[in-house]
Amino acid sequence: MRSDLDIAQAAHKRPILDLAPEQAGIPNEALEPYGRFKAKLSLEYIRTLDSRPDGKLILVTAISPTPAGEGKTTTTVGLGDALNYIGKRAMICLREPSLGPVFGMKGGAAGGGMAQVVPMEDINLHFTGDFNAIALANNLLAALIDNHIHHGNKLGFDVRRISWRRVVDLNDRALRQIVVGLGGTANGFPREDRFDIVVASEVMAIFCLVKNLKELKERLADIVVGYSLAGKPIRARDLQAQGAMAALLKEALAPNLVQTLENNLALVHGGPFANIAHGCNTVLATSTALKLADYVVTEAGFGADLGAEKFLDIKCRKAGLKPSAVVLVATVRALKYHGGVEVKDVGSENLEALRLGLVNLERHIHNITKNFGLPCVVAINHRTEDTAAEIALLQATAASLGVEVVLAEHWAKGGAGAAELARAVVKLCERPNHFKFLYEDQATLWDKVQTIATKIYAAAGISADAKVRAQFAQLEAEGYGHLPVCIAKTQYSFSSDAKLRGAPSDHLLNIREVRLAAGAGFVVVVCGDIMTMPGLPVVPAANGIDINDAGEITGLS
Amino acid sequence: MRSDLDIAQAAHKRPILDLAPEQAGIPNEALEPYGRFKAKLSLEYIRTLDSRPDGKLILVTAISPTPAGEGKTTTTVGLGDALNYIGKRAMICLREPSLGPVFGMKGGAAGGGMAQVVPMEDINLHFTGDFNAIALANNLLAALIDNHIHHGNKLGFDVRRISWRRVVDLNDRALRQIVVGLGGTANGFPREDRFDIVVASEVMAIFCLVKNLKELKERLADIVVGYSLAGKPIRARDLQAQGAMAALLKEALAPNLVQTLENNLALVHGGPFANIAHGCNTVLATSTALKLADYVVTEAGFGADLGAEKFLDIKCRKAGLKPSAVVLVATVRALKYHGGVEVKDVGSENLEALRLGLVNLERHIHNITKNFGLPCVVAINHRTEDTAAEIALLQATAASLGVEVVLAEHWAKGGAGAAELARAVVKLCERPNHFKFLYEDQATLWDKVQTIATKIYAAAGISADAKVRAQFAQLEAEGYGHLPVCIAKTQYSFSSDAKLRGAPSDHLLNIREVRLAAGAGFVVVVCGDIMTMPGLPVVPAANGIDINDAGEITGLS
Repeated sequence: MRSDLDIAQAAHKRPILDLAPEQAGIPNEALEPYGRFKAKLSLEYIRTLDSRPDGKLILVTAISPTPAGEGKTTTTVGLGDALNYIGKRAMICLREPSLGPVFGMKGGAAGGGMAQVVPMEDINLHFTGDFNAIALANNLLAALIDNHIHHGNKLGFDVRRISWRRVVDLNDRALRQIVVGLGGTANGFPREDRFDIVVASEVMAIFCLVKNLKELKERLADIVVGYSLAGKPIRARDLQAQGAMAALLKEALAPNLVQTLENNLALVHGGPFANIAHGCNTVLATSTALKLADYVVTEAGFGADLGAEKFLDIKCRKAGLKPSAVVLVATVRALKYHGGVEVKDVGSENLEALRLGLVNLERHIHNITKNFGLPCVVAINHRTEDTAAEIALLQATAASLGVEVVLAEHWAKGGAGAAELARAVVKLCERPNHFKFLYEDQATLWDKVQTIATKIYAAAGISADAKVRAQFAQLEAEGYGHLPVCIAKTQYSFSSDAKLRGAPSDHLLNIREVRLAAGAGFVVVVCGDIMTMPGLPVVPAANGIDINDAGEITGLS
Repeated sequence: MRSDLDIAQAAHKRPILDLAPEQAGIPNEALEPYGRFKAKLSLEYIRTLDSRPDGKLILVTAISPTPAGEGKTTTTVGLGDALNYIGKRAMICLREPSLGPVFGMKGGAAGGGMAQVVPMEDINLHFTGDFNAIALANNLLAALIDNHIHHGNKLGFDVRRISWRRVVDLNDRALRQIVVGLGGTANGFPREDRFDIVVASEVMAIFCLVKNLKELKERLADIVVGYSLAGKPIRARDLQAQGAMAALLKEALAPNLVQTLENNLALVHGGPFANIAHGCNTVLATSTALKLADYVVTEAGFGADLGAEKFLDIKCRKAGLKPSAVVLVATVRALKYHGGVEVKDVGSENLEALRLGLVNLERHIHNITKNFGLPCVVAINHRTEDTAAEIALLQATAASLGVEVVLAEHWAKGGAGAAELARAVVKLCERPNHFKFLYEDQATLWDKVQTIATKIYAAAGISADAKVRAQFAQLEAEGYGHLPVCIAKTQYSFSSDAKLRGAPSDHLLNIREVRLAAGAGFVVVVCGDIMTMPGLPVVPAANGIDINDAGEITGLS
């Protein structure tokens, strides 16, 4: 079987400077080429699109996944190609991959099989340098903090309460917990510190939520980096950091244009964590695509309980976006897993487990259609090991689920394999749409979490110790009560216990920690162990990656 | 007065895809554009140039500098423009700037005044992402080391003897000395660690010395990252790191093509530290330029005692390059400093100090012409505060110095201002050339250092304690005795004491430490305090850098 990389390398890519004008009417002067097959869309050009009408926005989300993932990116690419295949003007918007999983275990994030964005190696390695710019802006702020303390600490930083962390775009567990500033007076003041992976940086979250450079600079200035000994928040603006940080991000902020294997345009831009951040590509990419195409397909991280909820309650709220339809990706494999089968056995036919696992799908459908009022279709992301009986059983459930269930074979067949899904989506987009946020701005932070927990997760309620409750109260007092909440919990269960599969009810969501992302404009509510710096496995993917004398890369997945 | 950034932003830049074919016959398919004004020259194209004859190579170096620098980059750009101005086909090769000085104190490294490479903001900020690729390759290797130890340490790493450090392209003193791996078993084994600035990475030195991807991968594999408890060296190849590292560096390895203010082509590629590394742009850029132009002007870091010596004994030796002429940059300011005037007073006329300071210039001329056998011209990099009497005095010394002394006004007037220098250089290139290395490969490491110290620095000899002498012996025993040595000492004096200005003699060069750069292929000999992670000043340049809503950057210098 050909690997994703083999397929990608064999692709007939068209020069992006030819494709962009032809397919989306983008003039050449609006494009900054990065090689022949990548370009950045200039912010000047994007401003000229303001008066155009918006296309239809389609969100691709998923049921609660297995650790391998259920193929949201692949389905997003396949659906985009399929919409073009049936004659619609469609564009897709994806997140940029992080090098952590590329060199670790999970691999890249450019889709798979016949549904990929290319050039795959470039996109999965440095791409156009956006993550580097974000890491540098993040780390410049960190250097300015320690430098300020070294040179007299006029702002009165409490070195025990610096919340701003350094970042690197690698899985490097040794940097999770460190002590910096050792070695005497020339090296500053010793303190505990941490590195996160770059996708966990608040700069990444900000980058993905702003509409222009002006807003970027304002939000960077708003970042709370720590507290003074007097207990007052200290912000990036107190260090005069936002100008240099925004200058570092100038080029990065322009969305990246690439193409699918079928030569359809794709914007791939930004990639915040889906746990402590909102997990969607940039607002700039999505809103630009809506001006350039009639249908825009995008994805959100993790399962719908996390990804779709944040996409709708954070990204759509902040950016004024309104989706027309939601595609819920399910796999036979994951449904059997939710029906009680262990990961190692999900490859064998098991109709009973499949039937039992449907409760997970049902809950997600309910959330999307009833809690958010959005039209929804289920896409079965077909895998070669799925049996005919399993597929038939799933399709037979459509009536009881109240939504259409479509078999999507884009992984094997590209856009043609998802044509039925595309037609279903086009129909959905014409349906009445009663989109509503799950909670209003003016609800308290506590009530927002409670609403998400009870309505989306089917929890009995939420709990927190006195310290966390005090943090909620303090954030309200400091004027952050109007912000949306961003819940960080396991993606594998509706609950905060990864082992509770299916559709657990009446569990209690315990809040372990609350973090303010004042620049990004949300409050992170941490439920359970959340890892913001992954580690590498025993045999990292890096060991299998190579390049020959002619520059051909092998071993990327 | 207009700032460098004002001048650069007002430049009439020509699209690089137009300029490259027109000026150097580079076909468009050989170029990977990065925006309109930057491009990478493909390695495939570079291979096709092999059979062409080489142009003349001109090295720009300097007398022992003041802390502000004497304008080597500016003179390199000015001389390149001047050679084109007088009708020659010339190209320049420069190092890429590091963000450390850009956000710290010294500013960027794209030249100054009317002698700059553009786009200045891009070159000084991320440029084409090379330093990011180098940082990631460096840090991936670090993550693989700690990951290996975490998962059982089969190679038997002695955690007290890991020499491989992480890097970041910022001045961040808090990272000079740290402890990583804290927090319990999930986070690995605690150990002492350090971050360097990216220009100090051995990956950077390797990157700048290789001729192709194959050699890059071999040299990366050769890196010694630490020692086992049994005292055996452990290499990057033992961690199977070189393939993924080389894949990360693939795009970066292609040289970057930009232009000067006068629309002449420039290759700006690589930028290793001039203390613990050799301080020159990539071999690939230099050797490619020699195929594309009749005259290639390049620079080496620090003063000629360090930069020129390493350029000649390390870079030229490894790459088989032979320079045709050397331009020694001097300023009236620096000569007065060497004559005993304090930095704060160098702006006032002082003929006596100027006369006294000439000893520094004389020694450098002697080294270049006698020790290396190369034709040399002195370029007085004219500054507005220089008086007519001072210039006249300098020009009157030419006879006694035995070389031509030319006033160069490229900073104020661009290429036209350095036309006389260009004509002098063209004449020098026709002179007999007796270039020889200072020492032979087969000399011992100790003797190599001794030769440099006595011949170039006029030291009485060298000294080292028993531990350092044992390190020399061990390196010889391990088969590294044939490598060239790379001396890391202060740039402000011929001695290792920054306060000994002028031309000190009979001092003793004490060797504090020896470090093996097995991948880069040299032995670093540290004499005195060498800082591989700078700090930010009280008021960092970052505080003055800003960007407006239209994306215009201000405050870069």
